[in-house]
Amino acid sequence: MRELLDKPNISIFEELESEVRSYCRSFPTVFTQAENYKLRDVAGKEYIDFFAGAGALNYGHNNPKMKEKLIDYMMNNGITHSLDMATSAKAEFLKKFNQVILKPRGLDYKIMFPGPTGTNSVESALKLARKVKGRETIMSFTNAFHGMSLGSLAVTGNKFKREGAGVPLQHSVFVPFDKYYGEEVDTVEVIAKILDDQSSGVSIPAAIILETVQGEGGINVARYEWLRRIAELCKSRDILLIVDDVQAGCGRTGTFFSFEKAGIVPDIVCLSKSIGGYGLPMAITLIRPYLDIWKPGEHNGTFRGNNMAFVAAAEALSYWENDELYNHVEKNGQTVRLFLDKLAEKYPNMKGQVRGRGLMQGIAFGVEGLADKVCRIAFERGLIMETAGADNEVAKIMPPLTIDHEGLVKGLNILADCVKACSKELN
Amino acid sequence: MRELLDKPNISIFEELESEVRSYCRSFPTVFTQAENYKLRDVAGKEYIDFFAGAGALNYGHNNPKMKEKLIDYMMNNGITHSLDMATSAKAEFLKKFNQVILKPRGLDYKIMFPGPTGTNSVESALKLARKVKGRETIMSFTNAFHGMSLGSLAVTGNKFKREGAGVPLQHSVFVPFDKYYGEEVDTVEVIAKILDDQSSGVSIPAAIILETVQGEGGINVARYEWLRRIAELCKSRDILLIVDDVQAGCGRTGTFFSFEKAGIVPDIVCLSKSIGGYGLPMAITLIRPYLDIWKPGEHNGTFRGNNMAFVAAAEALSYWENDELYNHVEKNGQTVRLFLDKLAEKYPNMKGQVRGRGLMQGIAFGVEGLADKVCRIAFERGLIMETAGADNEVAKIMPPLTIDHEGLVKGLNILADCVKACSKELN
Amino acid sequence: MRELLDKPNISIFEELESEVRSYCRSFPTVFTQAENYKLRDVAGKEYIDFFAGAGALNYGHNNPKMKEKLIDYMMNNGITHSLDMATSAKAEFLKKFNQVILKPRGLDYKIMFPGPTGTNSVESALKLARKVKGRETIMSFTNAFHGMSLGSLAVTGNKFKREGAGVPLQHSVFVPFDKYYGEEVDTVEVIAKILDDQSSGVSIPAAIILETVQGEGGINVARYEWLRRIAELCKSRDILLIVDDVQAGCGRTGTFFSFEKAGIVPDIVCLSKSIGGYGLPMAITLIRPYLDIWKPGEHNGTFRGNNMAFVAAAEALSYWENDELYNHVEKNGQTVRLFLDKLAEKYPNMKGQVRGRGLMQGIAFGVEGLADKVCRIAFERGLIMETAGADNEVAKIMPPLTIDHEGLVKGLNILADCVKACSKELN
Amino acid sequence: MRELLDKPNISIFEELESEVRSYCRSFPTVFTQAENYKLRDVAGKEYIDFFAGAGALNYGHNNPKMKEKLIDYMMNNGITHSLDMATSAKAEFLKKFNQVILKPRGLDYKIMFPGPTGTNSVESALKLARKVKGRETIMSFTNAFHGMSLGSLAVTGNKFKREGAGVPLQHSVFVPFDKYYGEEVDTVEVIAKILDDQSSGVSIPAAIILETVQGEGGINVARYEWLRRIAELCKSRDILLIVDDVQAGCGRTGTFFSFEKAGIVPDIVCLSKSIGGYGLPMAITLIRPYLDIWKPGEHNGTFRGNNMAFVAAAEALSYWENDELYNHVEKNGQTVRLFLDKLAEKYPNMKGQVRGRGLMQGIAFGVEGLADKVCRIAFERGLIMETAGADNEVAKIMPPLTIDHEGLVKGLNILADCVKACSKELN
Repeated sequence: MRELLDKPNISIFEELESEVRSYCRSFPTVFTQAENYKLRDVAGKEYIDFFAGAGALNYGHNNPKMKEKLIDYMMNNGITHSLDMATSAKAEFLKKFNQVILKPRGLDYKIMFPGPTGTNSVESALKLARKVKGRETIMSFTNAFHGMSLGSLAVTGNKFKREGAGVPLQHSVFVPFDKYYGEEVDTVEVIAKILDDQSSGVSIPAAIILETVQGEGGINVARYEWLRRIAELCKSRDILLIVDDVQAGCGRTGTFFSFEKAGIVPDIVCLSKSIGGYGLPMAITLIRPYLDIWKPGEHNGTFRGNNMAFVAAAEALSYWENDELYNHVEKNGQTVRLFLDKLAEKYPNMKGQVRGRGLMQGIAFGVEGLADKVCRIAFERGLIMETAGADNEVAKIMPPLTIDHEGLVKGLNILADCVKACSKELN
Repeated sequence: MRELLDKPNISIFEELESEVRSYCRSFPTVFTQAENYKLRDVAGKEYIDFFAGAGALNYGHNNPKMKEKLIDYMMNNGITHSLDMATSAKAEFLKKFNQVILKPRGLDYKIMFPGPTGTNSVESALKLARKVKGRETIMSFTNAFHGMSLGSLAVTGNKFKREGAGVPLQHSVFVPFDKYYGEEVDTVEVIAKILDDQSSGVSIPAAIILETVQGEGGINVARYEWLRRIAELCKSRDILLIVDDVQAGCGRTGTFFSFEKAGIVPDIVCLSKSIGGYGLPMAITLIRPYLDIWKPGEHNGTFRGNNMAFVAAAEALSYWENDELYNHVEKNGQTVRLFLDKLAEKYPNMKGQVRGRGLMQGIAFGVEGLADKVCRIAFERGLIMETAGADNEVAKIMPPLTIDHEGLVKGLNILADCVKACSKELN
Repeated sequence: MRELLDKPNISIFEELESEVRSYCRSFPTVFTQAENYKLRDVAGKEYIDFFAGAGALNYGHNNPKMKEKLIDYMMNNGITHSLDMATSAKAEFLKKFNQVILKPRGLDYKIMFPGPTGTNSVESALKLARKVKGRETIMSFTNAFHGMSLGSLAVTGNKFKREGAGVPLQHSVFVPFDKYYGEEVDTVEVIAKILDDQSSGVSIPAAIILETVQGEGGINVARYEWLRRIAELCKSRDILLIVDDVQAGCGRTGTFFSFEKAGIVPDIVCLSKSIGGYGLPMAITLIRPYLDIWKPGEHNGTFRGNNMAFVAAAEALSYWENDELYNHVEKNGQTVRLFLDKLAEKYPNMKGQVRGRGLMQGIAFGVEGLADKVCRIAFERGLIMETAGADNEVAKIMPPLTIDHEGLVKGLNILADCVKACSKELN
Repeated sequence: MRELLDKPNISIFEELESEVRSYCRSFPTVFTQAENYKLRDVAGKEYIDFFAGAGALNYGHNNPKMKEKLIDYMMNNGITHSLDMATSAKAEFLKKFNQVILKPRGLDYKIMFPGPTGTNSVESALKLARKVKGRETIMSFTNAFHGMSLGSLAVTGNKFKREGAGVPLQHSVFVPFDKYYGEEVDTVEVIAKILDDQSSGVSIPAAIILETVQGEGGINVARYEWLRRIAELCKSRDILLIVDDVQAGCGRTGTFFSFEKAGIVPDIVCLSKSIGGYGLPMAITLIRPYLDIWKPGEHNGTFRGNNMAFVAAAEALSYWENDELYNHVEKNGQTVRLFLDKLAEKYPNMKGQVRGRGLMQGIAFGVEGLADKVCRIAFERGLIMETAGADNEVAKIMPPLTIDHEGLVKGLNILADCVKACSKELN
C-alpha cells in the first residue's frame, strides 16, 4: 500500500525536476507534514529530524505560536510583500530585534534587509566592505561556505561548488582556518605574516569573512581565543571583520550570536536561515553604524520585504527574552557531546572524531564513505541526518533547538544502532 | 491623530534600518493592510497600487483563494521548509505547472528551484549556460536589469548599481537592445557583425540574456520580430538564449510567458516575482532537457524549498486554465495605452512617450525630474507608482493583473490629475 | 648548389624552434644580409623588402650613418646596458628627441623608457592611465592591435591572439573604429551614447587607446576629423587619450607622429619599432607632465636601458631636422596610392579596395585567400610582403621610408605581375 | 671640474625623463664607458660593478670576443632585425645552444623566441601552460619576481609593484617559498595540503612557477631537496613546472641552469638577461616538445628576432664548452661567502644574515634602512651595489661572472669598509 502511494510521486520529481536536485536523493520519499522535530511522509512514516532545514528550523517545524501569529496576520489582510516599504510587521520586527537582541548585548548595528537568503546577505556584506575600504580582496577560510551566487561563491572553499561557477572566481584569497594544520600551528600568525609581508603576493583585504563554526565545511569549530585574535588582527590592520552567522547564529551554538562568548563585535554580521523563525525566507545584514554608507537602493531585491517572515521572526525573538532556550541548548548540547564521545570510543574502527558546539555537532569518520552510509541507514530507520565536510566525512547532528529530551535520546539511539551496524561490517 | 500614529513608526526605520532602504523614502508611510489592488496605511488612508510589488503581486494582495489554501496547509501542519527534499506541495506545483503551463504550450523544460529570488534564478541560468558551452562571456543588453548578486549584476546595465559591486564586473559584454539607436538602426545586424568579425574584441558568448520588455530599464519593448531574429542569431552561432521573465512573465504582458507571441523557445527561462502567487519568495529556472547537465547539488540554496510559496503558486496557476485573465489583461492593457496616448497628446510640454505591453506600461517624460515628481504627487493623492529608466524618466503603470475596471480608471484619473498639475507648473 | 646550402639550415629551425614561429613559414629561406630595402638569403638571392620588419626598419636595413655611430660607440667601450641609470648615450637621445621632435611641434611630454618593446610601452601606458584616473576599464577599438602581454592583449581585438591568453581578458571594452559600420554610421556618436547612457553597462574608462592607422587590423585609416572628435569626446568626459604610434609613428604615415595632421595632442603616446632606428629593441612612452605621477621604479624592466639603440635612435632623429624624409614619404606614398588604384581598377575580379596613408598602404581583396596567395607568389619573385586584417585579406605595402624610386617601382611591378597572375586564375 | 661636467647632464634626466626612473637616483652620475667589471662616469671616476645589469651582464661589459663578432657582423651587413624569419645568425645560435647546452645535459627542449625581455618569456610560458592544461590559475611564491607586464605581474609578490597595475591581478595564487616560515616548516607539505583538500578554495593550477634563487625577492635560496619535492608534487598532480631562470640562469649560480644540481627537468624554462651575452635584449622560452602546441603566430613580438643579440649570444655559449667559467664562479662564490660570513660575525650589531649561491649572494641586515645605507656609501667609494628584498633589507653581490680575483677582493674590501662605517654609527 505504502509503495503505491509513494512511488508515483517520486517519479514526478525525476520527470519534471532538474538533475540539480540533491536532498531528495538522500531522502527518497515525499514528505507531507511536520511538527517540531518530527517529519511525516506520504506513507505515514515518521522521522526524527536531526537536520532542521540545514539550520533554518531552529524553532522546529510549524512552531504553534508563530503559526497562530501568521494566521492572524493573514486573516487580517496584513501586507505580505512590501519590497522595502515601511510596514507595521517590519516595524514590529525591528523594534523587537533591537530590544531583545541588540540592546541587552550592548550591540549597535543598523539592520539591512538584503533579500531573503543567506547568499543575499553575504553579497551585501561583501559589497559594503569593498565600498567602505575601497579594496577588492576578501580574505576567506579553507572549508568556508558562504553561498552560491557569484560573489559568495568566490569566498566559498568547496571545489565542486566553485567549478560550477563557469568563470574564474576572483577577488578572494583563502587562508587556513583554526586548527587547519593541526592544533600546534597558529594560523593567526600565518595570516599575520602574509598580511605584513610586503612581498607575499596578497593584497590587504577589505574584510575577513568567517563562520565561527563551519557548518558545510565539516563542523569545524574556531576557538574563542582564535576568534579574538582574528578580530584584533583585523582591527590593527584596518580590515573589516564579517561574521557569517547564517547557520551558526540564531541560537544554534547556544547563544543567539555564535560569537558572543568570544567577546568580539564583528563589523558586519550576516543572518538568515532561522532568523525567519518559521522556515520562511528572510535574511538581515547587521552593519556597524559608521559603515552604513549605502546610497538608497544601491543594493536591492524583490523579496527583501517578506512580511510573513517578519511576523514569525518577531515572535521567534520571544525565545530570547529569557535564558530558557539557551539553557536548553547548552544542556542538550552536552548530552549530544557525551553521547558522541562514548560512541567514538566504543567503535574505534570507525576512527570517529567528535566536533561542534551547542546543537551543531558532528562526528567525522576516518573511514571513507562511512558518514554517508550511516546517514543512509539512519534514514531507513526513521532519522534524518546529513553529512558535511570536503569529503562528506562528517555525520551532522542539528536537530531543532526545541527538541525535547525524549526526541533527542530517541534520535541518538537510532544513530548508535546505525553506527553499530556499520562498525560490524567493517570488521 | 493620524500624525501620532504615523510619525513614531517612521522614525523607527530611520533609526534602525540601513541607509540602503529606498522605497520607504518614496512612499513615506507605514503600510498595514492590503487587498487586491488596495493598500492601507497606519493612518487608515487607502492607496491604489499601480506598482504591485514591482511585479511580484500580479494576482493582487492577499488573494483570497490562495489565502484559504495557505491557511488550510498551515493548519494541517504541511511542510514549510524542505530544501530540495520531495514534498507533496512541491509535487502538486510541478504537476500543475506541467499540465497548465508547459504542455498546452508544447514546451519541454526541466524545472529547477534555484533559491527563492530572481537573482538566484539568473545566477543559476548563467552558471548552467557557461558550463554547457564552456565559455565565460554572457552577452547582455543596454538597460538590462537582472539582479544584485555579483553574477547577475555583471549583466545588469545600470551604472549606479554596478558601481555598488566594489569589484570590476566581468565576463559580460553589452550590446544595443531593440531600438537603442532608434527604429532605423537594426541592432541584430550590429550584434551579428560583432559576433562574426574575427577581430571585434568580443568572444563568442555562452548565452545571450534578455528581457522581452525591460522593466527597470525603462519599459523598453522588444519587437517580436526582433526577438525572433535574436533567437535565430543564437541558434546559428551556437549561443544559448536565456529569457529573464522575472518581471515580464506570469501574465504581466498578457500571455503567461512574455515571449509566447514571438513564437520563440528560449533555452533557459528565469521566473520569479509572481510565480509564487501570493508575494512569497519563489523562483524557478526552466531548462531545455538536453542542457540539464547539472550534477546533484552543484547549485543550491537554503530556501529553494519554500513550500508555502508552492501552495500559493499551484493555486495561482488556476488562473491559466482558461483565457479569462489573459483577456482581462489584454483589455485593460488597451485601456491603459489609450489613456496614456491621450495624456501625452493633451500635455505636449511633458514630451511624453508611451511604452509597454499588456499591464506593463509607462510614459517616458522628456523633461528632467518629471516622472519622479508625478509619482510623488500621485502618492499624496493615494496612488502608488514608481519610476524606471536609466534617469528615472519613466512613470510605470503596473497594477495587479486582477485589478477591476473601476480601480484601473480611478488610478488613471489620479495620474491624469497629477500630470495636469505638473504640466501647469512647467508653463 | 643553392639547395645544398639552404635546406640544412631550414631544417634546423624545424627541429629546434617552437611551433609558434610564423614568418619563417611565409618566407621559407634563410636570410643573411641586408642593405636599406634589399634582403639577401643564404643562396644569394635578393629580395625587395616591402615589410620593413613590420615597421621597425623605417630607416632601412643597416643604415650606414647609424652603423658608423654604433661601431664607434662599441670601439670606445660605451655603456651597452644600463637599466635606467644615466648614461651619456641616453642623455644624447633625450636632448635630441626634445630638440628635434618635441619642441618644434610645441609638444610637452615626459619621456619614459618602459622596456624595449611596443607591448612594454602599451603596458606602461595602461598602468599609468588606470593609476591616474582610478578606473579599471580601457576603451579600445575593433581590429585594434596593441601587443601580446596580458595587459596589451586585453585591448587587442583579434580573436585568435586573444584566445592564446588562456584566461579571460578583462577591463577592456571594444567600440567601433572609424568607418566600422561604413562611412555613413558616425561611430563617435555611437561611443558618446554608450558613455553618456547611465544604463549602457559600460563604465567610464580611464582611457581610450587607438592607432590612427590600424596596421595589423587591416590598414584601417581613421579620418583626421574623426580623431579630433574622439579627442574632444575624451576631454569632455575626463578620459585620457592614448595613441599607440608603435607602427604608424616614426614617419611611417609621413609626419613623425601619425596624429600631427589631426591637430590633436594625446595624453600618452606609445612609440617603439623604428624609434630605435637600426632595428634594435627600444620603446618610449610619452606622458603629459601633469600625468607623470609614477613612483620611482613602479614600472621597470631589465632592458629599458639598451644604449646601442639610444645611439642609433639619436642618429635616426637627424632625419627629422628638415623636411626631406617627410617629402620623400609623401611623394612615394602618392606613387603607391596611384599604382594601387590603377591595379584595383585593372583587375576588378579581385575586388580590391585600396587603404592607407603615407608608406603604410594596402589593398584589401574581396576574394578569400587572395592576399595570402599574392604575397606567396611575390616572395617567389623576390618581393617580401605580408598580409594584415582579421581574415588576412589585406596585402600590405610597407617598404623602408628610405627606399629609392627605383626600388619602389621595381617592387610595385613585381606586385603587379603577381596580381595579374592571380587574376587570370580567378577567371 | 667634475661637478661642472656632471651636473648639467643629470639635470637633463630630471627635466625630460619620467618620474618612474629609479636606479639613476641610487647612482647619481652619468656613466660613459665600461669594461668587464669596471664602469666609468662622465667625470672619469671608476666604479667596480657588483650589480652587473641586474644579472644581464654575466660576461662583463663590452666583452671583447663578442664585440669583435658583433662588429664583424655589422661590417658585413648581417641582418639586424628579422622578426621570426630564419637568419643565419639565428641558425648559429640555435645550433650552438643545442650542442653546448641542451645535448650535454640530456635536455630535450624546443626553443621559443617570445620577444626580447624576461617578462615576454614569462608571459609566453604562462600562456602556454594555461593552454596546455586548460586551467587559469598559476601558483607562485611569496617574494617571487617575474616581470612587469600584467601576466607576469600577477605572479609577482611585491605589493608596491602589484599596486602599480591599476587593476586587480588575477588567476594566481601565492604559496610559501622554501623556508618562508623558517626551516622547520615544510612548505611542500603546506602546498600539498592546499592542493589535495577539496575545500581549500584553491583550484588545481596549470603550473607552478618559481625562481630557484629569488633575486629581487631577497636572494632567497631554495634547497635542492625542496626543488625536487616540488617537481614531484607537480608531476603527481598533473601540474606543469616553470622555472624562471631569467636572473639565476646563465651561470649566475655556477651551473648554466640554476636547477641542474637539483636534478630536475622543468616543463618550461624562461631565460633572458645574460642569454644575449653582451647586454643586448634577448629572451628564450624552453618548452618540452610534447607541450609545444602553439599555433603559428599565437604569441609574437616585433623584436623577437634581435640578431645582434643572437650573434653575441652564440659567442657567449663558448664559455660553456668547458668547465672553466663554472669553476671560476664556484671558487669566487666561496670567496664571497667566506667573506660575508666573517663580516656578519665581525659586526654583530648589523644582524647580518648571509644568503645566496654562486655569484648571486647577499647579506640581509636586521637593522632597518641599513642595506640602503651601505649601498649608498659604497657608491661614493666606487662600488656599485643594489638592495633586494621586500623591505630592501638585503645588500646584493652580483658582479660579472668574469670578474678577476683582484677586482672581487677590491670590491669586497670597499664593502667591508662601508659596513664598518655603518656599524660604528649604530653604536
